Amino acid sequence: MRALVIGGGGFVGKYLVNHLLESGDEVIATTNEGNSVAGCETLALDITDPGPTSEVIQRIRPEVVYHLAAIAFVPQAESNFEQTLMVNVAGTATIARQCQLLGNNAALLLVSSAEVYGLVKPHELPIHEESPIRPMNNYSLSKRMAELVVERYDRQGGARCSIVRPFNHIGPGQDSRFVASNFASQLARVAHGLTSPILEVGNLEARRDFSDVRDIVRAYRSIATTESGVFNLGAGQSHSIQELLDTLIDISGVKVEIRQDPTRMRGPEVPDLYASYEKASRLCGWAPTISFRQSLKDVYDHWFDVLAREKAQAAKETA
Amino acid sequence: MRALVIGGGGFVGKYLVNHLLESGDEVIATTNEGNSVAGCETLALDITDPGPTSEVIQRIRPEVVYHLAAIAFVPQAESNFEQTLMVNVAGTATIARQCQLLGNNAALLLVSSAEVYGLVKPHELPIHEESPIRPMNNYSLSKRMAELVVERYDRQGGARCSIVRPFNHIGPGQDSRFVASNFASQLARVAHGLTSPILEVGNLEARRDFSDVRDIVRAYRSIATTESGVFNLGAGQSHSIQELLDTLIDISGVKVEIRQDPTRMRGPEVPDLYASYEKASRLCGWAPTISFRQSLKDVYDHWFDVLAREKAQAAKETA
Repeated sequence: MRALVIGGGGFVGKYLVNHLLESGDEVIATTNEGNSVAGCETLALDITDPGPTSEVIQRIRPEVVYHLAAIAFVPQAESNFEQTLMVNVAGTATIARQCQLLGNNAALLLVSSAEVYGLVKPHELPIHEESPIRPMNNYSLSKRMAELVVERYDRQGGARCSIVRPFNHIGPGQDSRFVASNFASQLARVAHGLTSPILEVGNLEARRDFSDVRDIVRAYRSIATTESGVFNLGAGQSHSIQELLDTLIDISGVKVEIRQDPTRMRGPEVPDLYASYEKASRLCGWAPTISFRQSLKDVYDHWFDVLAREKAQAAKETA
Repeated sequence: MRALVIGGGGFVGKYLVNHLLESGDEVIATTNEGNSVAGCETLALDITDPGPTSEVIQRIRPEVVYHLAAIAFVPQAESNFEQTLMVNVAGTATIARQCQLLGNNAALLLVSSAEVYGLVKPHELPIHEESPIRPMNNYSLSKRMAELVVERYDRQGGARCSIVRPFNHIGPGQDSRFVASNFASQLARVAHGLTSPILEVGNLEARRDFSDVRDIVRAYRSIATTESGVFNLGAGQSHSIQELLDTLIDISGVKVEIRQDPTRMRGPEVPDLYASYEKASRLCGWAPTISFRQSLKDVYDHWFDVLAREKAQAAKETA
C-alpha cells in the first residue's frame, strides 16, 4: 500500500514510518525541514504552502495519507495563535481538499488529540468519542478546528477520512519537554553520576492515560486502512504523575531527593483523564499491548544508553 | 449602558447601532475602513491587528461588546481560507481574550450564523441550539471555530459570553448580492423603466427562514445584556425562494418574465431550513414582529426610493 506520512520527522512519525515499512507498505514521508526519515524517501514540505502541498499529494497519489504535521507544543500554540491556525487548520484544509480530489480509493487519517475534550469532569470518565468537546487552549482549539475541516471534506465525498484522538503516549526518543521523558532523562543523569541526586518536578497529582507510541501507531494504520470516523486511542486507565515518577525511580534503582517547583503547585484543571478505546477495539480489534512499566523502562533505558554513548564519546575525545 | 459595536459599518451593524442608541445606550462603533456610522463615535479598527484591538477594548472598557466583524460573503471565504481564519477566528480570539480581561461586569456577544448547522436534513427541522453542527464551507467552518474560541474564554471566567446564530435576515439597505435585495432591486429597475422586464434568478426551490434585521438586532441587545450561551434567531418558518419572488412581484405590481440561469439549476444541498427560536422566546421574551411580506415591502420600497432619487439627480444634472 502506498502511504504518505506528512510530518514524518517527529517522535510519532518515525515510529509510524517504521511500522508501515514493517507492514510492507511503500512509504514516502515529508518533514518541515527536509530532515530525512530513516528507511524511506523523504521530501521537504511546509504544509502552509498550498501549491507544493497539493503538488506532492497529486504527484504521489498515495492510497493512504497520514497527517501528523502540526504545532503540537501547547505553549507555542498559546503564544502564537495565528501561526497555529495557519499550520494546524489551514494546512489541514489543503491536505483534506487534495485527498478529496484523490477520490474514493484514497484515505486520510488526521491525527488529532484527546486534548479536544478539554475540561473533563471526573463523573464523565472514561472519555468516549461522543463525550463533550470543551477545548481550553489554542492547541486543543486548533485540533478541534482541524477535525471540523476534515469532517467537512469527508461529508462532501472523495477520500475516506478518519480522525484519531490519542491520549498521552510515551516511548523511547520523546522530547524531554514531556513528563515521562523529562523524569527519565533526569534519573539517567543521576545514575551516570552526571548530576546531584535531586529531581525537579511539578504537580504530581494529575492522573493521565499513558500508552506506548508503538501501540498507538499500530492503531493509526489499522484505522486508516479500514475505517472512517473518530477514534479514541489510549490505555483505558490513568496513572498519577506521582505513580509515573515512583515507577521510573524504581526502574532506575537510584536514590533521589524530590524537589517540587512551588510555581507549578496549582491543582490541575483536569484532575483525571482516561479513554474508552472500546470503539477501536470493537471495529479494529485494537488494544494496547505494552504495559505502563515496560514503556517507562524503555524510555529510561533509551536515556541511559544515550548518556552512556555521550560519556564514551567524551572519554574518547579526552584520551 | 456603554456598548462597543465591532464591525458597526455593515448592514446589520447600522441597524444595531440605531437600536442601541434608541434604547439609551452610549455607543462606540468600529469599522474596518473607518467609515463613520451615523449617530455615534466611530473608530477605524482592523481586528486582525491585536495591539490596536486590545487597546480599543481596554481604553473604552465597554459593558457590552457586540462582535459583528467578519468576512461574511461565502465565496470570499471559500477562495481565501487563510484570510477568513485570520479575521473570523484569530480576530475573535483577540476580542474574546480582551473581554475576559474586562472581568465579570462585561459581556460579549458573538454574532455567529445558522450556517454552522450546515447539512440539515428535513427530518431534523426545526433547528434548535443542540442540533448537529455540520459546517460545509469555509465561512460556516470559520463561524463554528469562532464559537469554540468564545466558549473557551467563557469557561475560563471573566466577561459573560453569548453567541447568536441568526438565520437569513433581510431588510432595507442589504447588499444586492443577497437574494431578497437582488430580486427587489431588479424589480425596482423594471418599475422605473430602467431595464427590460426580465428577471434573472437561480434555483427557486430552496426554503429558508427569513426574518427582519430590525427584529434580529433587538434580540442581540436583549441576549447580550442578560444571557449567556447559544441562541438561534429566526422567524421559525421557511419560505421558498419562489414564494419570496412571487411576493416581491406582487408588491412591485410589475409584470416580468422569469429567466432561470441554467448554471445554477442544481438542487439545493439543504432543501429546507428553519429555526426554533423557543430558547430566545423563553429566556428573553423575544419573538419576531415584522412579517415576511412587510419586510419584503420595505426592501422593495428602499430600492424604489434609491432609484427614484438617482433618476431625479440624473434629470437635474441633464437640465
